[in-house]
Amino acid sequence: MRDVAVIGIGQTPIGELWDLSLRQLGANALRQAAADAGIEKPDTLYVANMLATRLSNQAHLATLVADYAGWRGIEAATIEAACASGGMAFQTAVRAVASGMVNVVAVCGVEKMTDETTAQITSALATAADADYEGAHGASFVALNALIMRRYMYEYKVPHQAFGAFSINAHKNAVNNPNAMFRKAISQAVYDRAPMIADPINLYDSSPICDGAAAVILAPLDMAKRLGKPIIRVRASASATDTLSLADRRNMLSLEAASGSARKAYQLAGVNPSDIDLFEVHDAFSVMSALSLEGAGFAEPGTAPYRAQDGEFAIGGRLPISTMGGLKGRGHPVGATGVYELVDLITQLRGEAGANQVQAAALGMTQNIGGTGATVVAHILERAG
Amino acid sequence: MRDVAVIGIGQTPIGELWDLSLRQLGANALRQAAADAGIEKPDTLYVANMLATRLSNQAHLATLVADYAGWRGIEAATIEAACASGGMAFQTAVRAVASGMVNVVAVCGVEKMTDETTAQITSALATAADADYEGAHGASFVALNALIMRRYMYEYKVPHQAFGAFSINAHKNAVNNPNAMFRKAISQAVYDRAPMIADPINLYDSSPICDGAAAVILAPLDMAKRLGKPIIRVRASASATDTLSLADRRNMLSLEAASGSARKAYQLAGVNPSDIDLFEVHDAFSVMSALSLEGAGFAEPGTAPYRAQDGEFAIGGRLPISTMGGLKGRGHPVGATGVYELVDLITQLRGEAGANQVQAAALGMTQNIGGTGATVVAHILERAG
Repeated sequence: MRDVAVIGIGQTPIGELWDLSLRQLGANALRQAAADAGIEKPDTLYVANMLATRLSNQAHLATLVADYAGWRGIEAATIEAACASGGMAFQTAVRAVASGMVNVVAVCGVEKMTDETTAQITSALATAADADYEGAHGASFVALNALIMRRYMYEYKVPHQAFGAFSINAHKNAVNNPNAMFRKAISQAVYDRAPMIADPINLYDSSPICDGAAAVILAPLDMAKRLGKPIIRVRASASATDTLSLADRRNMLSLEAASGSARKAYQLAGVNPSDIDLFEVHDAFSVMSALSLEGAGFAEPGTAPYRAQDGEFAIGGRLPISTMGGLKGRGHPVGATGVYELVDLITQLRGEAGANQVQAAALGMTQNIGGTGATVVAHILERAG
Repeated sequence: MRDVAVIGIGQTPIGELWDLSLRQLGANALRQAAADAGIEKPDTLYVANMLATRLSNQAHLATLVADYAGWRGIEAATIEAACASGGMAFQTAVRAVASGMVNVVAVCGVEKMTDETTAQITSALATAADADYEGAHGASFVALNALIMRRYMYEYKVPHQAFGAFSINAHKNAVNNPNAMFRKAISQAVYDRAPMIADPINLYDSSPICDGAAAVILAPLDMAKRLGKPIIRVRASASATDTLSLADRRNMLSLEAASGSARKAYQLAGVNPSDIDLFEVHDAFSVMSALSLEGAGFAEPGTAPYRAQDGEFAIGGRLPISTMGGLKGRGHPVGATGVYELVDLITQLRGEAGANQVQAAALGMTQNIGGTGATVVAHILERAG
């Protein structure tokens, strides 16, 4: 097993990008990452995407993007695990490099959501849930998350306003990120007055519908050491699964795939939660931030919103999260999100996060969640020189 | 890099399986493969699928199938490369085992096509082509293949009836395969009289719309040696890509991804085309059999249909192809096909192919094609004891 490093990153701004197609978005991020890595072309490309077949009539996306990036002929495949597609594509790439069968592997998360109607987007997103037992009954994806949030509020007696701290932190961090969709801070009053999307999830509890692409280039650690740049080593890549349908879970407030993937990641890296300097959380909905933090061992069950209110997860706090704006502020192009999380983490580990730099960031973690917690991927990366 | 072996196989019959859902099909094939391998559960599951998001409203399929197979918690991701999904999922699994990061990896190809209308299926299949430059102009997938076949007939002056030899051979072999969709032989006269689908592709030049699932279990070669069963070793796993759109190809009769993947596979295995005992060809359309055979070095350009007429590709011939019926006779549940090809090859290498057994089959190859040749995966497997 070879050690694996990230040698290049790239990303497009996130937004309603009506003048850029899927292939253009993907190639833009990839060319940037390849230039950053100083490579001509990779051996293999894994594209993370969830919705192109439905919203853009395009399957076979990895091969299309490889060609448009100028890399006709290389290996290519698309990896999908709903909103955890990006994390699973990165894991696939880590193993390909570790196998010794290929050397340089590119990962590109790309999603184009805004060209279709809200109804089409809502039904496309619902394919992340169990089609036969949830989707067929009309449950949208936000509705399922609303059930979880309502249960959290009831079970732990947490008032809705306590969740605002997650959104306020994310929006504050997005202000300084030139690639973020929403570069404006919000106050608790703005959060409290926001219109409901699916009670109790309001506008600021939800991440936006958007377009974007992010990319990373992986290579053997030995190759990375010869490049004379900050070395970002993959210390752990772990994933776990749960039932797609909420009704089949043992406890809908305990994301077993979040705790399972985090436990495996800590074991592989030989570290504890307290060793982690920053955590890119999957804040697709406020309640998912809470459940991910609690599942990964960063907060006791039922306490994460209060800890957020205390500033523990702000830059400068005990464990900064959503440091470049997270899914809420930076944006959530669903299949691309896991790669954006990694790009944000690597930006921090390299010390290139500008006004949002987490001081002395040496060891960081991401958690990328698919469905209402059915697939969760945890990565631990380290600045190794 | 660890050597990798296949320790279990499973498959469902192929057909219009209206009383079985996606998760049931997938789990049926996987449980059969796990029982064959004698394992409780794998560490990781890769599901190959192309159409579930469109035709069954279901993304996130790998995690769903893992749970339904009784393996809640294991790693899972879906791999897609149009009709080459199965081959790319197998390659992903080979690398995961070779990396040493996981030990036992399951691959399941599953597709459910027949629950929707022909119009919906036709547009879903067209997503394998370039949506912006082919699909948007109304080109269906069979229409694109018809362009290729017409060009082949014109360029090489091959009459349509010469292609019949591929269909006759495939149907003959399907008769003895209990899992095949069409267990009936056809004659040249039947082929010649078949109705046109998209001129010059007639009914017997096309593979059917169908449902089915196939599965394999991979493990380190060392583990396979302890099981006391025929050892099936993966000698080479290679893939290559080309443009999605036909108009961008340098030569539409030369599948560069077919020749590229085959060349890499021979090099990795250290063998020549003449060393291969049987070849599971991707006969989605008759002309694809010809182009794959020619790209892989088994026939000179423009000659494959004549060689088929001479019986070279029949069981007992120089290089048997489509030995269990191929995509035409056995069936072509698109995302699952690459795994069916591997299951058929392994059945032959184990000496379990019954009336269709290729004598002294020790080294075999598959080629799995996505789109009109944009992604091609070549695998060489060997009976190693």
